[in-house]
Amino acid sequence: MSILVVGSVAFDTIETPHGKRERCLGGAATHFALAASYFTPVRVIGVVGEDFTPEHEAILTRRGIDTRGIEHAKGQSFHWSGDYLNDLNSANTRATDLNVFATFEPKIPEAYRDSEYLFLANIDPVLQLRVRQQMPKVKMVCGDTMNYWIADHNENLRAVLKELDVLLINDGEAAMLSGIRNTVRAAAFIMQELGPKALVIKHGEYGATGFFSDRIFAGTKDVNPFRAPALPLAEVIDPTGAGDSFAGGFYGYIASQPVLTPAVFRTAMFYGGVMGSFAVERFGTERLQNVSQQEIDARFNLFREISHLA
Amino acid sequence: MSILVVGSVAFDTIETPHGKRERCLGGAATHFALAASYFTPVRVIGVVGEDFTPEHEAILTRRGIDTRGIEHAKGQSFHWSGDYLNDLNSANTRATDLNVFATFEPKIPEAYRDSEYLFLANIDPVLQLRVRQQMPKVKMVCGDTMNYWIADHNENLRAVLKELDVLLINDGEAAMLSGIRNTVRAAAFIMQELGPKALVIKHGEYGATGFFSDRIFAGTKDVNPFRAPALPLAEVIDPTGAGDSFAGGFYGYIASQPVLTPAVFRTAMFYGGVMGSFAVERFGTERLQNVSQQEIDARFNLFREISHLA
Repeated sequence: MSILVVGSVAFDTIETPHGKRERCLGGAATHFALAASYFTPVRVIGVVGEDFTPEHEAILTRRGIDTRGIEHAKGQSFHWSGDYLNDLNSANTRATDLNVFATFEPKIPEAYRDSEYLFLANIDPVLQLRVRQQMPKVKMVCGDTMNYWIADHNENLRAVLKELDVLLINDGEAAMLSGIRNTVRAAAFIMQELGPKALVIKHGEYGATGFFSDRIFAGTKDVNPFRAPALPLAEVIDPTGAGDSFAGGFYGYIASQPVLTPAVFRTAMFYGGVMGSFAVERFGTERLQNVSQQEIDARFNLFREISHLA
Repeated sequence: MSILVVGSVAFDTIETPHGKRERCLGGAATHFALAASYFTPVRVIGVVGEDFTPEHEAILTRRGIDTRGIEHAKGQSFHWSGDYLNDLNSANTRATDLNVFATFEPKIPEAYRDSEYLFLANIDPVLQLRVRQQMPKVKMVCGDTMNYWIADHNENLRAVLKELDVLLINDGEAAMLSGIRNTVRAAAFIMQELGPKALVIKHGEYGATGFFSDRIFAGTKDVNPFRAPALPLAEVIDPTGAGDSFAGGFYGYIASQPVLTPAVFRTAMFYGGVMGSFAVERFGTERLQNVSQQEIDARFNLFREISHLA
């Protein structure tokens, strides 16, 4: 079933110990959509400038992604520039030029109205909420956010959190959002007080933990946390978009299944790790543009093998 | 089959956010022996002072642990004092009084000579090596170390590493020992250049990763890394000895099995996590003194449940 994703479509200038790339196609919605496209139809809402050419659009449409909701505005696209020279686990932002994104006003094409899954990528919570309100009948809402919105737009963010079935964040964001350092208690607080029915807390190279409230699965009390591994990698070429790719694999798999069960959620966390592990193998979205079903299956089996007892 | 462990038997004065305990029985060999005792016979080599009473010894002997190798010397036992008030993941040492441990000279009782598994707990590598050399016929040698020995006694430590089948360390120690930040490459370097045939790198609350060289298992080329989870805990009462308890569960299980296969190694990593998760539930060794086989089985099943797809 279709996922509607709203988020940034951008150009990234990235430097890592493996080299530098100027203005490669990026943005949370882009990474998410490419990763999810291997599992289910994806529709994108975003805004780009005049520097976004038909060749860029083809990167998405070649993967069957519906780009009719990408608005073309006068000016330049959102541009992020940063490096991972000190630490591959955390980006050092050099410049953020919002450009056409500064006045982004999400509009939902008529053809997108029947989308059943909504993904609110990491953008201003005011925009996240606006999209959510225009899609009252979706079957499920999943969202991402970041430290900036938690710290400086907390009230707006809280209005979004109330609408979420699943929130995807990392360890630091979970601690910041809850004011609690212990992960288990932070997760309980977020689910009990802030809204999400489930939470995936990402631990970078250590994988991710899923936490479930008793509101998430119909007809089961199976609410133990779940730990999914990340692949131990000897080389990370470019970590940009790893989290969005995780989200794409995770949510793409969920949307491809008829009903959300504990087994589906857990398998989805493995597919999140799988797509994240592909994403970092090359710069930008290069790797995610061309993964074969066979490679995904083999990588999924590898994830299983490195984490499962016989 | 019997494990011979050499290491510290000590008293710990510990303060955590959950309270304070004065001079409770501790030490790497103590935690290790208690955890391993649920799987296999354990023999301890260490030294204690006059403050070590028959009641203290009974904590070990009640679990069937052979204490004939614990030497009773004049003076006070090794005493460590520290807290976890700032961060439950890292101890702040207030005082280390080596006392009788300062002149410890390990002697191996005749009755211990047929031990088949040797565990070199975290002590001076000179002593580790001396014990190892007195036990040339053991089936397997596993060892632990810490940042202090890596930094200031590197040459002595390297002589021990050459003798190890399995080295257990944490992320920081792996990086320090190899000079490499990437875990996979650090592990490869340690196994290829320093000696251990396998490596378990502990990630604290995120579990542990096992790495295998092709010298570790006879007759198999299955050398993929393996990730074992840790239990997400809402409350850690006292983290002291968690790593030694992990080692005890891990090595105790290995020693209880007829031959080291990939499946045995992986299951052992789960039992390591299981015993570590018990250890932190109470102060000192309190919890490890009384765990039932049923509780161990249930916890093992929980570890499996939170990490395995259906």
